[in-house]
Amino acid sequence: MMLSLLPLLLALGAQDADPPVPAMSPSEIVENSHPSAWRQVAPDHLLIMTLSGDREVVIELNSRFAPRHVLNIQRFAENGWWFDGTVYRVQDNYVAQWGIGDAEKDMPDGVVENPPEEYVTSIEGIRARGLGSPDSYAATAGFVDGWPVALYRDGTASLTHCYGTVGVARGLHPQTGSGSELYAIIGHAPRHLDRNIAIVGRVIDGIEHLSSLPRGSGTLGFYEANETPTEIDRVILASMLPEEERPSYEVMIETSDEFGDYVRARANRSGDFFRVPARGVDLCNVQVPIREVGED
Amino acid sequence: MMLSLLPLLLALGAQDADPPVPAMSPSEIVENSHPSAWRQVAPDHLLIMTLSGDREVVIELNSRFAPRHVLNIQRFAENGWWFDGTVYRVQDNYVAQWGIGDAEKDMPDGVVENPPEEYVTSIEGIRARGLGSPDSYAATAGFVDGWPVALYRDGTASLTHCYGTVGVARGLHPQTGSGSELYAIIGHAPRHLDRNIAIVGRVIDGIEHLSSLPRGSGTLGFYEANETPTEIDRVILASMLPEEERPSYEVMIETSDEFGDYVRARANRSGDFFRVPARGVDLCNVQVPIREVGED
Repeated sequence: MMLSLLPLLLALGAQDADPPVPAMSPSEIVENSHPSAWRQVAPDHLLIMTLSGDREVVIELNSRFAPRHVLNIQRFAENGWWFDGTVYRVQDNYVAQWGIGDAEKDMPDGVVENPPEEYVTSIEGIRARGLGSPDSYAATAGFVDGWPVALYRDGTASLTHCYGTVGVARGLHPQTGSGSELYAIIGHAPRHLDRNIAIVGRVIDGIEHLSSLPRGSGTLGFYEANETPTEIDRVILASMLPEEERPSYEVMIETSDEFGDYVRARANRSGDFFRVPARGVDLCNVQVPIREVGED
Repeated sequence: MMLSLLPLLLALGAQDADPPVPAMSPSEIVENSHPSAWRQVAPDHLLIMTLSGDREVVIELNSRFAPRHVLNIQRFAENGWWFDGTVYRVQDNYVAQWGIGDAEKDMPDGVVENPPEEYVTSIEGIRARGLGSPDSYAATAGFVDGWPVALYRDGTASLTHCYGTVGVARGLHPQTGSGSELYAIIGHAPRHLDRNIAIVGRVIDGIEHLSSLPRGSGTLGFYEANETPTEIDRVILASMLPEEERPSYEVMIETSDEFGDYVRARANRSGDFFRVPARGVDLCNVQVPIREVGED
């Protein structure tokens, strides 16, 4: 059944037709934001992957869209699943993928091997801040809980594949993947994957440790026998660390005035470098502000 | 003066309201394409940059939008300008930049140090194939000569910053840059740079030699004193090589039936992996087919 666009537009809430462009740059808006413009990432939704050579990749998990897959990932982390894993696939302008690959291991208790499809949710109850620019893929796009989201004409919503997005590798449809093998986007947003794969998170720190890895020369960027996969030393949840050792991250929330200003400033870059503002921005070029706090 | 959208739509030409989705995948369409669907890249528009360790980056130049800047680049190449240059800036999800940096050298004959702004052209005389999906930045988007192009309400058109796009680094507006320092996009399309910088080309082979370089830890990804820039061994035009040693590349042209099929197939991915087609594609995710020919 096709729904009209009306519920989508209602879901987006009322937007001023032409809000003023902020005088501050995007980074100035972030620097001058009020503490209430931010939410903290919960420690059990902060996945810390340490690659060999102390290269730390920090991932925020999102339980709203793929709760069963995220539960699996939390179980894998708690059970040290990836301690002997590797990054075994790096495809340019696409993904870096890691896990245990072809190794055979018994799944930990509490893991569901082929969870239900968690690719979309109903837009019912979703209140998004609109992007304010057209989207090439969906009826409209915006932000929910500080995450980029697409809203479709059929009344569904999905997280989107942007730079840094973490998804669950899977076999052919209808396999959904357990979450044992994960990938992060390291190129231009492959939005055609939206609604086809469970998106479970995003890299919020250390993406360069994945994006700058040597590309694999095999099909789809898999490493060949003569190429060395990057070893994973450890993958844990921040909640597994003593409280005083946990890193802490904050995400700017879309209900804040600062976020609205930030999106408009990103869409209307000014200052001494720019000759003309774009007057638009695509969902994945907004780059939701995320920061580490409490670091020395 | 603001023009109506009518000339833009005329420039795009008549499009079927709902062309059929091809049964073949994008790669099958490329494999089965007729030779007439392709144009060859002219040897004097093929820039070959060899980084240390025989890493070859091949760039196609485009004279249509920034002719004076491209002339400069051809003069630089002919005069061995970059033989002692480096890749000295790598910013994650943004750019890799190369040139002679702060080295002081006399410009070769025929180089104009601060060319006119060549950021947009008039849409007059431009006949583009439409993308068929909305664009977040421009009135409409499409393809001209096998290049992604944005068309604006003010009657101008520009090349666009997609993955692999090569542009001319410059100082603050109104400096336009000579072309001595160039960058390639190695992340999600920073389309806010469109109409603000001279786009002169795109990497058509070997982008991974730039995108997988270590990120610089300085501001904007510049390498600090303790980081080693990548040395450039040689930058030449293919036309400077003996004819039998020249590499040869072909670009699929947008006037071919195959190109239309390819875009529709990219927007409607099917096959055993996909659960649902996107029914849309953004300009930079189309990835115009380009291939090397005549290689052993």
